[in-house]
Amino acid sequence: MKHQAPKGTRDFYPEEMAWRRHVEDAWRKISIRNGFEEIDGPIFESLDLYKVKSGDGIISELFHFQDRAGRELAIRPEFTPTLARMVAEKAASLPRPIKWFAVPNFCRAEKPQRGRLREFLQWNVDLIGIDGPAADAEVIFTAVDFLRELGLKPDQVAVKISHRDVVKRVLSRLGVSDDAMLGAFDLLDRRDKIEHEQFNAQAQTLGLDEPTIERFNQVARVRINANAPWHDIQEKIAVPDEDLHDLEALHKQLHAFNIADWCEYDLGIVRGLAYYTGTVFEIHEISGAERAVAGGGRYDRLIEMFGGPTLPAVGFGMGDVVLTNVLEDRGLIPDEVAPPVDIFVVAAETAASPLVTQLISQLRSAGFHARQTYRTTTNVGKLLKEANQSRARFFAVLDQNTIDHQTLTLKNLKSGEQTHIHLNALPVHLKSP
Amino acid sequence: MKHQAPKGTRDFYPEEMAWRRHVEDAWRKISIRNGFEEIDGPIFESLDLYKVKSGDGIISELFHFQDRAGRELAIRPEFTPTLARMVAEKAASLPRPIKWFAVPNFCRAEKPQRGRLREFLQWNVDLIGIDGPAADAEVIFTAVDFLRELGLKPDQVAVKISHRDVVKRVLSRLGVSDDAMLGAFDLLDRRDKIEHEQFNAQAQTLGLDEPTIERFNQVARVRINANAPWHDIQEKIAVPDEDLHDLEALHKQLHAFNIADWCEYDLGIVRGLAYYTGTVFEIHEISGAERAVAGGGRYDRLIEMFGGPTLPAVGFGMGDVVLTNVLEDRGLIPDEVAPPVDIFVVAAETAASPLVTQLISQLRSAGFHARQTYRTTTNVGKLLKEANQSRARFFAVLDQNTIDHQTLTLKNLKSGEQTHIHLNALPVHLKSP
Repeated sequence: MKHQAPKGTRDFYPEEMAWRRHVEDAWRKISIRNGFEEIDGPIFESLDLYKVKSGDGIISELFHFQDRAGRELAIRPEFTPTLARMVAEKAASLPRPIKWFAVPNFCRAEKPQRGRLREFLQWNVDLIGIDGPAADAEVIFTAVDFLRELGLKPDQVAVKISHRDVVKRVLSRLGVSDDAMLGAFDLLDRRDKIEHEQFNAQAQTLGLDEPTIERFNQVARVRINANAPWHDIQEKIAVPDEDLHDLEALHKQLHAFNIADWCEYDLGIVRGLAYYTGTVFEIHEISGAERAVAGGGRYDRLIEMFGGPTLPAVGFGMGDVVLTNVLEDRGLIPDEVAPPVDIFVVAAETAASPLVTQLISQLRSAGFHARQTYRTTTNVGKLLKEANQSRARFFAVLDQNTIDHQTLTLKNLKSGEQTHIHLNALPVHLKSP
Repeated sequence: MKHQAPKGTRDFYPEEMAWRRHVEDAWRKISIRNGFEEIDGPIFESLDLYKVKSGDGIISELFHFQDRAGRELAIRPEFTPTLARMVAEKAASLPRPIKWFAVPNFCRAEKPQRGRLREFLQWNVDLIGIDGPAADAEVIFTAVDFLRELGLKPDQVAVKISHRDVVKRVLSRLGVSDDAMLGAFDLLDRRDKIEHEQFNAQAQTLGLDEPTIERFNQVARVRINANAPWHDIQEKIAVPDEDLHDLEALHKQLHAFNIADWCEYDLGIVRGLAYYTGTVFEIHEISGAERAVAGGGRYDRLIEMFGGPTLPAVGFGMGDVVLTNVLEDRGLIPDEVAPPVDIFVVAAETAASPLVTQLISQLRSAGFHARQTYRTTTNVGKLLKEANQSRARFFAVLDQNTIDHQTLTLKNLKSGEQTHIHLNALPVHLKSP
């Protein structure tokens, strides 16, 4: 009887794994060069940990279970609670700022659909202990640095940026009361998913009159590329400058980091989660055809919710599933991401076969990726074909001369060049590019 | 309220994570140069999958749960069932031999103790589709290649090797009936954990007389380094040569791979699991003070148990917990495994601060690991101290000259050498070793 991978999960055969490794390696490389240090936590946590941020409502979205002692545990659906717990636990001894990244796997008990699986990978980047727009911009820069590294361009993906305080001030000035503010945010969040009439009807329940709803609608649909002088942007948003000062400060930093052309101000970006406190952003494929590639923002009160000190913090998460969809759509998945093969070693005579084993074991221990055939044939033509299929850079043929004089025939499979060399000279040849 | 990591799990703060990354990277590097390709499967599987190999007894050792549709699922406690499922599913289209490795995390619902946690990493290496001692030796070589890479020596760890068929023939000749064979293997497996009297008593229940029990005991305690001529080894084991031919064939291959000095024959090695069919081995710290670092062997009938074709296979698993304990015991954990920092950039005047942001963003996008201070001070002495703490290779000071003439002061923090250079010349300096 055959078995299958559980619904909503993936098997990574070598080809899929090479791609996953390519993405994970790039996430790590970009994190490190931006000064973040890698961390990780357990694959499961106390179920209670997930209630702190999200309430009891989260439970149905989790895979949860008990251990033999009756402890309630859950497979992690996201990283933030683990991060907050780890910061809270060692806050006193951690150097500031805390610049951490992680590349964990997560599970959610939800219905699988395009861009959403039951198990996925997510890059998490967080800068903790520093307030202000420079930290926000550095975190956004790190995301853009990655997108650029994978070959994406500013006309293919955009970082859509808003700011909670700015939107609050704008809505407040429009007449949205403090009590109605959460409802207004919720309406903003769903503005693209509902009909115009429905939008208006819901806006009315917030106590707004017709002209104000019209104005609210306009603000909700603001989309302005950040690659413009601030004055032009301020004019387009058309709200008093004093309401926008947080966005203006961020604007300066996005220009200092030279990523303004990747960014657009979109006051409709809310990030459903209630814990964000300032800048919020989402990265989207430009056509809007896919779910968000990444999302994040400032969450200055989260660490204290988990028993830690009050610490400003900003970060984002980027999943592998939507990212891969977007890169596929754009033809940006390279044909070959598997590690290169240095040399394919064969014997042209059965007597030389034991020497193949000796040679590949020496080469491997010296750091070379050395392969051999597992067939018994000594037909060099057939073996050359196998070497080419393995994508090896070099092809080495051992024969009676190898036994008698320690020499071998070495063929460069790219240039076609062929030489007879001593075994001792092999590493030098392999090290040449 | 503070929260903690669940019992038996680990938080990986940057220091612990750097070590974990060091081990994982070495596992990958060694696997790849030995011609293995990386794969992975889901973090959870159908609970049924684990019953195929291990029966219902396994359930109490698993963290298991249901999804909303009532499917019984379990967090993976090991990789072999996933591997067998993946091979069975695509057996017809996979190129032979199948040489796969994986570096997944696993969970077991057991009592945490030294060398055993509830969540751990394990390197899995499998060579499928090739029978014979050369494949067995290649897999053992891969493990040794790793141990050597991490600095271990043959006088610190040993690959203890046995062979099921050899032991079966030896026991059979001693008078152990086929019916009593499993009981005899079980007794072999526990020979070091029980008293001599208990051993004798249990051997009697297998229907053996006194002199035979004595002989059985001798065979069970055979420990011979493989770095000797076969004739000497055969003499020490002291059973007829025809019973040992499988071990002799493996012996030749261990010498061809030049790892005989890492190996010892130990006929008491059984590997509790019933599915091994030929060569079996365990890697142990030489004093025997720790649990096995790794274990594996040949399992020629496992793929068909999971609905696949009959395929010979050999492989091993190596966990990170015991490995780390052994390396700690031997003082082989390097002080510094974190990624190097290329440059630390500061402003000696507030007016130059925006240039710091511009420069680090350019350097990072060019592939350099560039850091900055997050403090507002322009005291170069204090900033130099911070740069040294960050272990940066270079220290760059921007000032009015940078604004006026695009020049900066660059200090090599290893040599102490200091130069004034143009901004454009910086990448060339950073690329020098």
